[in-house]
Amino acid sequence: MSGEQQTVTVDLGERSYQILIGEGLLHETGKLAQQAGISSKSACLVVSDSHVAAAGHLKKVTDSLRNSGYRVAEAVIPAGEESKTLAVAEQVFDQAFDAGLDRKSAIFALGGGVVGDLAGFVAATYMRGIAFVQLPTTVLAHDSSVGGKVAVNHPKGKNVIGAFHQPKQVVYDISALRTLPLREIRSGVAEVIKHGIIWDRSFFEWIETSIDPIIELDSRILANMLARSCAVKAAVVSKDEKEDNLRAILNFGHTLGHAIESLARYGTYTHGEAISIGMVFAAELSCELGKTDRASAERIRNLLQRAGLPTEMPANLDPAALLQSMKQDKKATGGKLTFVLMSEIGRVEIINDIDETVVLNLLRRLGRSS
Amino acid sequence: MSGEQQTVTVDLGERSYQILIGEGLLHETGKLAQQAGISSKSACLVVSDSHVAAAGHLKKVTDSLRNSGYRVAEAVIPAGEESKTLAVAEQVFDQAFDAGLDRKSAIFALGGGVVGDLAGFVAATYMRGIAFVQLPTTVLAHDSSVGGKVAVNHPKGKNVIGAFHQPKQVVYDISALRTLPLREIRSGVAEVIKHGIIWDRSFFEWIETSIDPIIELDSRILANMLARSCAVKAAVVSKDEKEDNLRAILNFGHTLGHAIESLARYGTYTHGEAISIGMVFAAELSCELGKTDRASAERIRNLLQRAGLPTEMPANLDPAALLQSMKQDKKATGGKLTFVLMSEIGRVEIINDIDETVVLNLLRRLGRSS
Ligand SMILES: NC(=O)c1ccc[n+]([C@@H]2O[C@H](COP(=O)([O-])OP(=O)(O)OC[C@H]3O[C@@H](n4cnc5c(N)ncnc54)[C@H](O)[C@@H]3O)[C@@H](O)[C@H]2O)c1
Ligand SMILES: NC(=O)c1ccc[n+]([C@@H]2O[C@H](COP(=O)([O-])OP(=O)(O)OC[C@H]3O[C@@H](n4cnc5c(N)ncnc54)[C@H](O)[C@@H]3O)[C@@H](O)[C@H]2O)c1
Ligand SMILES: [Zn+2]
Ligand SMILES: [Zn+2]
Repeated sequence: MSGEQQTVTVDLGERSYQILIGEGLLHETGKLAQQAGISSKSACLVVSDSHVAAAGHLKKVTDSLRNSGYRVAEAVIPAGEESKTLAVAEQVFDQAFDAGLDRKSAIFALGGGVVGDLAGFVAATYMRGIAFVQLPTTVLAHDSSVGGKVAVNHPKGKNVIGAFHQPKQVVYDISALRTLPLREIRSGVAEVIKHGIIWDRSFFEWIETSIDPIIELDSRILANMLARSCAVKAAVVSKDEKEDNLRAILNFGHTLGHAIESLARYGTYTHGEAISIGMVFAAELSCELGKTDRASAERIRNLLQRAGLPTEMPANLDPAALLQSMKQDKKATGGKLTFVLMSEIGRVEIINDIDETVVLNLLRRLGRSS
Repeated sequence: MSGEQQTVTVDLGERSYQILIGEGLLHETGKLAQQAGISSKSACLVVSDSHVAAAGHLKKVTDSLRNSGYRVAEAVIPAGEESKTLAVAEQVFDQAFDAGLDRKSAIFALGGGVVGDLAGFVAATYMRGIAFVQLPTTVLAHDSSVGGKVAVNHPKGKNVIGAFHQPKQVVYDISALRTLPLREIRSGVAEVIKHGIIWDRSFFEWIETSIDPIIELDSRILANMLARSCAVKAAVVSKDEKEDNLRAILNFGHTLGHAIESLARYGTYTHGEAISIGMVFAAELSCELGKTDRASAERIRNLLQRAGLPTEMPANLDPAALLQSMKQDKKATGGKLTFVLMSEIGRVEIINDIDETVVLNLLRRLGRSS
């Protein structure tokens, strides 16, 4: 193991856990699992996806666990969001059962947000909840490693079937990110920038100065970035574990982002790309409604551009359809339009009952200019 | 509404709820839901099964809810344990989604333990958990109305996929029990007797004097019985919400009971019948190991017989196979044999590491005598 190691503690009373961030940590999964109190008397299951397994990361994990005396089974799901279904979960339940997992067993989720959400859902519901360890291999998965949200998709809506289930531990090996496609790296950075905007101005400014080494995966910078970004999310969810109020600020950029994801042809935009456009829109809407100044909105657009993320409204998406989709979002209750708006970089607020006409006009205006 | 009404409070801090027990309460579902704080702004879903709907209970509930201003959708599943699957849950998710349920919606479970467990699982995982109201229509369902356990079965094991999700309210209309087949009534009484044995000697003695009016569904006696039986379970789970230790005493009679259920041809024994035999066995084993006296074991056997429940070991089940099945039970960790044994009526203890040979010999002996 080389380079700096970072630790973030997610403070949730007796369900508190640590996020360990560093180079080469997957080789120590077994030792770290022991430290986290995962019993080796019961069998465990490592869930991963086809890309991550092919990139060689799965073998590091299973070897390390076996070296520490764990009985290990593997479940490799096909890579991609299409695997995040109840049907694939049922296959993983099968494999967990066949491997003899009991109430004291643990499930390790090695992969991006898809593997984390699906394996976490299985861990949350297998025998009414067993231990769960996250081994994130994407930048975006730093986001899902905090907050305890686990889910699968329903044919009619994303993350409709899910639970809250906190991991026992998160082991984040940044060397695993070196096999991740560049587009996925940029996409994950979108959520990092969001964390700066909603909570921590100095973090946003640090990203402005560090964006080039970040995209080049400089080891020290990356570990720092992930730790700070996890810390923001941890601060938000510790104050509001069950998403009543504060937590909704995490949806900055997501109101429009989700609508773009659901209307664009599948695969056109990654989640991070969609929310990048959504964040530009939320900043513009904040200007439009007199909540913030032009300079702040421009600064956000610039940083997202430098991160290689799209910032223009998709010309082929109909503003009326986008509006309709936003009103049906599962975060909406009673068909009202809610936005997280910015007052300055580092400060946002949740506004319900946004005037539809303002939103529609802005969607049209920004759509034309692109 | 006629007759006496009973209320049991299940004390779980901010998740506390009430069990209302009385005649004709289903006609007041709407009013009671309002009192429990269920919003009528969002749509709700009543889940029931084909028998319960045919017996006319579903209409009472939907009428009452509509009269109180709720928008109500229905999901009727085929009656029987075979419906307690992820596949049927997926259909109910579909119906919930189509009916427009959102985070503020509620699911009402009208039926026995199958409907309660399945609809509760859907409520626990739909949008990561929405409100849940239980409307039990069997005697056995008094048991599932306390404890927050919800689940579906996996092809390879019962209740393997589940969660903990507390209801907002339980509305127990004892007049609904009048359409329940006698065998199901007796079967539910087995769990009532269990609650006397494990926790409350005076309750056991009260059942001894009341067993005839109980089986005849005397309204006052029944309401009393259900309230006391719920209160025992509530006392146990309040002290141990997450099944670490104390809660395991609820498995009295279930170690062998589960093995009988899984080895006998499907439908041969109801759950209550299987645990009736299991309780006789647990009492005999307690004698055998010098924990209790013969007289107590006989008293248990007598009461179960008077309730019309089976007390003899099934002659056609192989003792070695029963033993094997008990060792594989999901409550077992690491293949060890755990029993809840009785020291006297009203007092039990959990014993791990029971000697297999003693169990096997007793199974053989009791099997021969039947
Ligand atoms: N639970 C939460 O709080 C939360 C938060 C944000 C996002 N999410 C979920 O996360 C999912 C998106 O996460 P994601 O972007 O990580 O997607 P992902 O898991 O699909 O990973 C993206 C792609 O990268 C591949 N990959 C992952 N790691 C790799 C590696 N090290 N080397 C090579 N290829 C690798 C994957 O196989 C996949 O093709 C969505 O389903 C979203 O709903 C959940
Ligand atoms: N969650 C828990 O804590 C818990 C506790 C005990 C049992 N359970 C579960 O409960 C289930 C068994 O419960 P159950 O015995 O109530 O089974 P059930 O729900 O299948 O009901 C038994 C039968 O009676 C019918 N029925 C129900 N109410 C009726 C009525 N009023 N009139 C006419 N017919 C009616 C049903 O359609 C069914 O055919 C099992 O799946 C078991 O795992 C759960
Ligand atoms: Zn996001
Ligand atoms: Zn039982």
